Amino acid sequence: MQDNNIIFGKNAVLEALIAGDREINKILISKNIHSDTKLNKIKDIAKENGIVFQFVAKEKFLPYAEYNHQGIIAQISPIKYIDIDDFLEEKHENSSLVILDGIEDSHNLGAIIRTCVCAGVSGIIIPSRRNVQVNATVEKTSAGAINHIPIIKVNSLVNAVQKLKNSDWWVVAADANAKDNYFDVDYKNMNFALIMGAEHAGVSKSLLKASDFIVKIPMLKEFNSLNVSNALSAIIFETVRQKLKN
Amino acid sequence: MQDNNIIFGKNAVLEALIAGDREINKILISKNIHSDTKLNKIKDIAKENGIVFQFVAKEKFLPYAEYNHQGIIAQISPIKYIDIDDFLEEKHENSSLVILDGIEDSHNLGAIIRTCVCAGVSGIIIPSRRNVQVNATVEKTSAGAINHIPIIKVNSLVNAVQKLKNSDWWVVAADANAKDNYFDVDYKNMNFALIMGAEHAGVSKSLLKASDFIVKIPMLKEFNSLNVSNALSAIIFETVRQKLKN
Repeated sequence: MQDNNIIFGKNAVLEALIAGDREINKILISKNIHSDTKLNKIKDIAKENGIVFQFVAKEKFLPYAEYNHQGIIAQISPIKYIDIDDFLEEKHENSSLVILDGIEDSHNLGAIIRTCVCAGVSGIIIPSRRNVQVNATVEKTSAGAINHIPIIKVNSLVNAVQKLKNSDWWVVAADANAKDNYFDVDYKNMNFALIMGAEHAGVSKSLLKASDFIVKIPMLKEFNSLNVSNALSAIIFETVRQKLKN
Repeated sequence: MQDNNIIFGKNAVLEALIAGDREINKILISKNIHSDTKLNKIKDIAKENGIVFQFVAKEKFLPYAEYNHQGIIAQISPIKYIDIDDFLEEKHENSSLVILDGIEDSHNLGAIIRTCVCAGVSGIIIPSRRNVQVNATVEKTSAGAINHIPIIKVNSLVNAVQKLKNSDWWVVAADANAKDNYFDVDYKNMNFALIMGAEHAGVSKSLLKASDFIVKIPMLKEFNSLNVSNALSAIIFETVRQKLKN
């Protein structure tokens, strides 16, 4: 873990929050830490800015043993996240978005970002909780792709999907139990957002409910366990095929 | 590294070779080891059975420091590899094979095997050299898929491709510089083998030359760096789409 991926110690984290020029993925606070004015200030500024902070067992700090962290660490993102409202204010035509719902593995996120850039996807939406954030491993696995596509971070995917629908985007969710195959949807001549679910749990029910289409990848063998980045690749390049074929 | 993934020490490796009931991926021999009757016997039996052995610097043994390896280790495969002649003797109709040319990363191989099983691929061909073999990491990343598809190991991919062509298989290679797009080939009503190349070098020239079709995945952005398992997924599910659409 390199120094430039984390900020440690109460003072340094507070100063970083006040300065506001570095993108913070998450703040980890030890459950054993005593509350004081500085800690309260940290929590207040974090809340104001929608930055996630978590109270965790001290074991979570073992990877940071070499730092004098005093029970508080801010994980820094290598990129600036984009605001969904800013994204939607731009003009989009026959564009695509990928929405990730609960991706836990950094390597998967990196591979997904690479694939999205290659397939000309306009942006990737991730939630601020229950999904891996863009970190140094993601940056490496993405082969630098994180710098070639807007990554939009939102506090609620359900709200994000609603905003997309209000802006005339179509929403497609991938789900193993869907009736329709992914290649039966016509992805041309529309803006669409494709929701890919967690490695195990899939897309959450509230998002499935909000989707205009639910599609599956047909399995030719009873082995329903496609890696999420590979599943995304199959679907997103079908959308590319459709666009290029016309 | 678990004990059941390696056999260490001259005697144990020799006995395993004589018994012949465990599949050996590779034998590592320290350059510092003295030649003697046993070592010569090991080399002879390995050669006879097409098992790769490599003389390596003693640093290569650092991961095995806890074992009394005496400068010799046999890496064991969790699966039995299939012989290409046995595979070709079976009847195949509208079947597909995936040929991997120089895949170095265990996670990529695991993801590729998962995808192949899901897409109903009939077998995967890997070369015995310059390609990661099926090991414990591959097994784990494949989510158990290694047990659901024949993995064919060959000493020469060029010979394997020739055998396939002699048995009326069509050979398709993926190459970023190809003129044709992967979705312009008709994969129905034929047996075909799809060659995917190394993460960096791509498919080797001799194999490109032997191929019936060379295809690319069109990139919608100037960022030609699709992960190999994601590239495979895009192509192989296009072949599934074509089959199911008819």
